[in-house]
Amino acid sequence: MAGIADVAALAGVSKSTASRALSGRGHVSATTRAKVVVAAETLGYVPSTTAVSLATGHTNSIGVIMPYVTRWFFAEVLEGVQQRLLEEGLDLTLYDAKPGTAARARVFDDFLARKRFDGLIAIGLEPEDRELERLLAIGCPLVSVVGIAGSVSVIAVDDDYATRRATEHLIGLGHESIAFLGGGGGEHWPQVERRRLEGYTAAMEDAGLAAHISHIRAAASLPASYNAAVDALGDVRSRPTGIVAVSDEVAVGGIIAARRLGIRVPGDLSVVGIDDHEYAEMFSLTTLRQVPREQGAAAVDLLLAHLADPEKPPQTIHMKARLIVRSSTAAPPE
Amino acid sequence: MAGIADVAALAGVSKSTASRALSGRGHVSATTRAKVVVAAETLGYVPSTTAVSLATGHTNSIGVIMPYVTRWFFAEVLEGVQQRLLEEGLDLTLYDAKPGTAARARVFDDFLARKRFDGLIAIGLEPEDRELERLLAIGCPLVSVVGIAGSVSVIAVDDDYATRRATEHLIGLGHESIAFLGGGGGEHWPQVERRRLEGYTAAMEDAGLAAHISHIRAAASLPASYNAAVDALGDVRSRPTGIVAVSDEVAVGGIIAARRLGIRVPGDLSVVGIDDHEYAEMFSLTTLRQVPREQGAAAVDLLLAHLADPEKPPQTIHMKARLIVRSSTAAPPE
Repeated sequence: MAGIADVAALAGVSKSTASRALSGRGHVSATTRAKVVVAAETLGYVPSTTAVSLATGHTNSIGVIMPYVTRWFFAEVLEGVQQRLLEEGLDLTLYDAKPGTAARARVFDDFLARKRFDGLIAIGLEPEDRELERLLAIGCPLVSVVGIAGSVSVIAVDDDYATRRATEHLIGLGHESIAFLGGGGGEHWPQVERRRLEGYTAAMEDAGLAAHISHIRAAASLPASYNAAVDALGDVRSRPTGIVAVSDEVAVGGIIAARRLGIRVPGDLSVVGIDDHEYAEMFSLTTLRQVPREQGAAAVDLLLAHLADPEKPPQTIHMKARLIVRSSTAAPPE
Repeated sequence: MAGIADVAALAGVSKSTASRALSGRGHVSATTRAKVVVAAETLGYVPSTTAVSLATGHTNSIGVIMPYVTRWFFAEVLEGVQQRLLEEGLDLTLYDAKPGTAARARVFDDFLARKRFDGLIAIGLEPEDRELERLLAIGCPLVSVVGIAGSVSVIAVDDDYATRRATEHLIGLGHESIAFLGGGGGEHWPQVERRRLEGYTAAMEDAGLAAHISHIRAAASLPASYNAAVDALGDVRSRPTGIVAVSDEVAVGGIIAARRLGIRVPGDLSVVGIDDHEYAEMFSLTTLRQVPREQGAAAVDLLLAHLADPEKPPQTIHMKARLIVRSSTAAPPE
């Protein structure tokens, strides 16, 4: 099988030039690149990554670290990242890091230090201070999709804004008794859920509805929110007329619970979510739309910009959720 | 920063011995390994993967190729694979290969040939003949979690058995008019769905119920099956008394459709799924339980066995789904 040395010899260039030309990294003139590509094709050469790494100092792989691969938001971002990396010819090395697990400690203490990647993308990671220090100490470009603020480049979603807008939508329809469903249901309470609760709380306070603030705690899954809503909505005297849910899956859990209890949506109860999940349309769910795949693709683009220019300062790209009104929200009952 | 040469010098061994000792691959005596580990710890040495690869010929990474990361089964298997790999100190390089996409062609034609991994795990891949040839031509150990039969090592789920058992469960309760929900709803019709349909068909034929065989086509998602079921269950004259669904998500789509149409489950309609998805309990769904995380972990173990013994012949490990009876199934209405 042909090696890089054969390709370089046939193209009449040095091995490192041939490596640069084939890896697409570092400067090579268009003419030289063409010569090398023709030589590689002639010889049926497939670059060995190890050889390319040695010649270029690059692994041509991007590390992705995330706490969950089985949840909607995380899986969608991962797919967006993967698609863009494939387009760029880059590999994706995945590190699963669930909060509070021994596996997460091992990822931070051992796996990341091996530095099998040119850059890192953190998806909704919410690292502790010590963990963030570790990430920064690796010394390669890092972009976070939400989950980190300030010190690194971030694709940010304005969570405050999303629930504030959702709450204001219900207030605008005439609701006063509006509860927040989701968050604070498990041992680990992610920052994103806290910020969404704060957006709701701020909107209620601003509208003079502080006395109506109510938080129905539930873990971030459809079954958990269903169970919490069945408990919370059972008593007609204390039942809110509106629900702002921490996510669409949680909103759908609330709607299914309402149906089970004979509560009409939106006749008796309006429900608004966040995400525009694939279930949203089926439940006619009013929601704040975000597109995690686009966040993943944007993270790759930003990371490539950092790889191309190591001096580029950290940048935050804000993505704003957009209100989609369907028929799960209406004026409150008389 | 200390390099492998420093560690080797301090331990009084060769560089390649030091690499083998630290990578955990290849033979090194316990005494030598201990000397090298102490030297590495003394110097604060973290192995560079490129250097280890050169010394050992191993990448310490496992490639995982799968068509979907956002679907329940695939994401759960991936999580099982990732957890076991982390325990073994191995990296996971992810290749997303959706059927019929240019990205999938690129993965097969380019990414896999780079061989950035010691072994490959294919999850529900269902490769075409040409793609399977490519996979085998790579020449490294390959284990498939379902999706490939025969020529390679496979963690197999008996799909025939699962739907046969589900159908027989309904027949045993006295149902005759039993429809199969799901499969054949999109352009791409996965083998797994066809096999599940065959298991249902065989059970119906064996019970002399061939005249009642009915297939409600729907793509493999909750919203798609909801829409298909709303259409199919609307007419009381042609309505079945039992549904065998291709998966739990599809079964839940059917149950939500039934509720919307005022059809009682199980009073008017019994529904049985396959998976034991996290939604199953919430909908009191009778189902055939499979545990994709365990399939993922088993795939890693089988792959490690192949890595340890390159002469080991392909092996198929069968995992059987188990019937979990909840309250979505009962005798048919009088």
